[in-house]
Amino acid sequence: MEPIIVKYLDRPELNEPVLIEGLPGVGNVGKISAEYLKDKLNAIPFVEIYSKYLPPQVLIREDGTLYLVKNELYYYKNPHGRDLIILVGDYQGMSAEGQYELSYKVLEIAKEFGTKLIFTLGGYGTGQLVEKPRVFGAATDKELVEELKKYGVYFSSTEPAGGIVGAAGLLLGLGSVVFDMRGVCLMGETSGYFSDPKSSFEVLKVVKEYFNLELDLEEIELRSREITEITTQLKEEQKIEEKKEDLGYIG
Amino acid sequence: MEPIIVKYLDRPELNEPVLIEGLPGVGNVGKISAEYLKDKLNAIPFVEIYSKYLPPQVLIREDGTLYLVKNELYYYKNPHGRDLIILVGDYQGMSAEGQYELSYKVLEIAKEFGTKLIFTLGGYGTGQLVEKPRVFGAATDKELVEELKKYGVYFSSTEPAGGIVGAAGLLLGLGSVVFDMRGVCLMGETSGYFSDPKSSFEVLKVVKEYFNLELDLEEIELRSREITEITTQLKEEQKIEEKKEDLGYIG
Amino acid sequence: MEPIIVKYLDRPELNEPVLIEGLPGVGNVGKISAEYLKDKLNAIPFVEIYSKYLPPQVLIREDGTLYLVKNELYYYKNPHGRDLIILVGDYQGMSAEGQYELSYKVLEIAKEFGTKLIFTLGGYGTGQLVEKPRVFGAATDKELVEELKKYGVYFSSTEPAGGIVGAAGLLLGLGSVVFDMRGVCLMGETSGYFSDPKSSFEVLKVVKEYFNLELDLEEIELRSREITEITTQLKEEQKIEEKKEDLGYIG
Amino acid sequence: MEPIIVKYLDRPELNEPVLIEGLPGVGNVGKISAEYLKDKLNAIPFVEIYSKYLPPQVLIREDGTLYLVKNELYYYKNPHGRDLIILVGDYQGMSAEGQYELSYKVLEIAKEFGTKLIFTLGGYGTGQLVEKPRVFGAATDKELVEELKKYGVYFSSTEPAGGIVGAAGLLLGLGSVVFDMRGVCLMGETSGYFSDPKSSFEVLKVVKEYFNLELDLEEIELRSREITEITTQLKEEQKIEEKKEDLGYIG
Repeated sequence: MEPIIVKYLDRPELNEPVLIEGLPGVGNVGKISAEYLKDKLNAIPFVEIYSKYLPPQVLIREDGTLYLVKNELYYYKNPHGRDLIILVGDYQGMSAEGQYELSYKVLEIAKEFGTKLIFTLGGYGTGQLVEKPRVFGAATDKELVEELKKYGVYFSSTEPAGGIVGAAGLLLGLGSVVFDMRGVCLMGETSGYFSDPKSSFEVLKVVKEYFNLELDLEEIELRSREITEITTQLKEEQKIEEKKEDLGYIG
Repeated sequence: MEPIIVKYLDRPELNEPVLIEGLPGVGNVGKISAEYLKDKLNAIPFVEIYSKYLPPQVLIREDGTLYLVKNELYYYKNPHGRDLIILVGDYQGMSAEGQYELSYKVLEIAKEFGTKLIFTLGGYGTGQLVEKPRVFGAATDKELVEELKKYGVYFSSTEPAGGIVGAAGLLLGLGSVVFDMRGVCLMGETSGYFSDPKSSFEVLKVVKEYFNLELDLEEIELRSREITEITTQLKEEQKIEEKKEDLGYIG
Repeated sequence: MEPIIVKYLDRPELNEPVLIEGLPGVGNVGKISAEYLKDKLNAIPFVEIYSKYLPPQVLIREDGTLYLVKNELYYYKNPHGRDLIILVGDYQGMSAEGQYELSYKVLEIAKEFGTKLIFTLGGYGTGQLVEKPRVFGAATDKELVEELKKYGVYFSSTEPAGGIVGAAGLLLGLGSVVFDMRGVCLMGETSGYFSDPKSSFEVLKVVKEYFNLELDLEEIELRSREITEITTQLKEEQKIEEKKEDLGYIG
Repeated sequence: MEPIIVKYLDRPELNEPVLIEGLPGVGNVGKISAEYLKDKLNAIPFVEIYSKYLPPQVLIREDGTLYLVKNELYYYKNPHGRDLIILVGDYQGMSAEGQYELSYKVLEIAKEFGTKLIFTLGGYGTGQLVEKPRVFGAATDKELVEELKKYGVYFSSTEPAGGIVGAAGLLLGLGSVVFDMRGVCLMGETSGYFSDPKSSFEVLKVVKEYFNLELDLEEIELRSREITEITTQLKEEQKIEEKKEDLGYIG
């Protein structure tokens, strides 16, 4: 079999579309963000990607039908700026080599449609509950670094330590080395303990503003507030616990 | 070497044969079902599949002779309906990629013989002893879902959570995406703690009725009853244990 | 790079040579046997096999020089019967797929030189100290089973359970399926806890007699006796321990 | 994608350049040595190597820009002797097969530029703090063994037991088997518990002298002395601990 099977549902004419990636990862920040984006913008699916590098698995829909795990590309024709290609999926590649192959294939497809710029979305796991998640960035070149700083994105010489692993890193790395594309990775701070729409909300605000999108953020803001409530409660419980501990054996 | 070595023992003329898969898996429900089917129907072996994706292992027969681990296809000319191709084997592929490759190859072979419909048989592990195993299903399209419901198959929006892993899922997933085949996965409930002919019995009843097979289920019913006896006993012992626990330190 | 690099040092004319394999494995019984065989028969190296399926490692000789890990073929022109090709090596393939590829390549080479019969040598791990190791067998056909029984080889319908894993099994399995070769696996009983020349001694006695070899077994018999002494001592200590335990707290 | 992507930044004319390797490994002795070498000699980068055998990862520079993990070749035109090609990198290959493929590719490139001799640099982990690290060696032939002994390199028939794993071994092993190159591996003793410039210092002294390099070792000698101070302190603390233990419960 072909290691990666690409099915084109459509071949739209796009205007230098930005590739925006959001696959499963830390806190599912990227996945939540990209799926919110495609849903709210009514983006149109046009490419399905199946591969032996994905898990050997089918998933089941509510109506009892099944489908092979896949990655998908959606497009959105932006009336106020650049068009978008949005990459979402059930899984990332299972092996390191598979991740390289899948990212490379996505870049080949994006190139076909004229992509020169990439935004990858992800989470930056801090291992701690975060009150107000910052958005960290890393970019292929200094101009993009400077540009994104204006949108409130943090660029740190120390964070994330260890770099960026998986598609969010590879698309930018391979994109710049092989396909002459530029790009940015936006990473929302997240504890990493659960799927984190609050962190996605912060990431999406940057994306919305940067690409001048008509994007309704109300729903994700709502889900973000729910997370705030839960984590506030957890933090207070933690403080009570800590006080108890300070009181030692008496408590 | 060729990654998958296919040996044709025969090239029978078949009438739109259904591919029925039963490889090792949870509770060995699929394997027991498919092997019972081929034995009782006196199905004829016609394809042997060897592969580097299977374990590097030979198995030893009672008479001291050995054979390389393999998958096999048997055919059965059904006088009352569609012909069958039955897939059985010692193992599934060892790696995710190997599972994709093996399933793809089986589909290629089935296509050659005219297959348009696939039934995959497996177990659905509940982690608990099951008094009366239900048969759960998932299908490639809604028509098949509706059709199978008439045979008592359960389609649940929540079960099995996590989808279907391995050949039982891949044959349907790849079959529909690449080979334009339709199909159903039948999953018999099973604890998953032992090889479970009772669950296979329930699965086989659906298969028998759906394909109008002259299939003698007496032997598997017998083995099924033995399982019932054992599990009934186990359950009673469990209850006694639990009562003891309820009585606390006194017991 | 080529996944397997074959270097021919010589291309001898051989008379239907038997392939005899002895690579590292349980109790190193096969390795010890095959290396003893090649050393005592002054067999001549003629093929070196390097591969990315072997560990990424060089080994160091006593004089400070190093060599890449490899498998090797030696030949021996037998004045009293069939010629031999002896397969020895530092390692077996690291992955299942690599083991298939390496065994296949060895069979291709053996075929070139006219091989129709294979003897693979190995250990059968019992997990217990064995006073008098038996030699178990498994063969590609019934004639060989009957023939080897005459040499005192045991063929059991239950042992070894789980079949034979690795090159000792694959060479026979692939040999019979793809290369139309016949063969036998001889497995000496061994605890599996240490390299076991005693088990190799029993295996070599069968090989010597079967192929009518002028093979001096004195040295391996000596090493075998040393093992007997050590294990006898260990067994006695065990008995003393057990007696102590029987005496309970008093001891 | 191509499994290994090679980008030539330049194609210098070199005079039988020696390939000097120093990739991450035990105590990072090789990496520290090779990077010191390229920095102090102002060696010029001319080849970048990207590969799916490396981790699927980008690393982030201080200024917020990112780059795909890679290996790199630098060249140095030596006015007093042979030219150098220096191999450095962020990682070694992740899998055994990947390590073979990467080493093979580096050798192909080096061959293009006329390389006949290889020096690989690494650490030899002793698991203990080392007061005065010795430099152990292993070479492709006896002449090189004798030659390097004159530079104070130790060749032991027992150390390192287990041979040499990874690029430091493979480059020499594949180099001699496939590319007709000779070479030496220099291994500085190191505890293996931390990045060890002290061990690198000893290795670099051999390299400097052997190739008659104008190499300023002052900085690494300084870092080496810092290590000495730290380990001396650690050792004294250890002794105090041990004395305490000797005094038993009283201490």
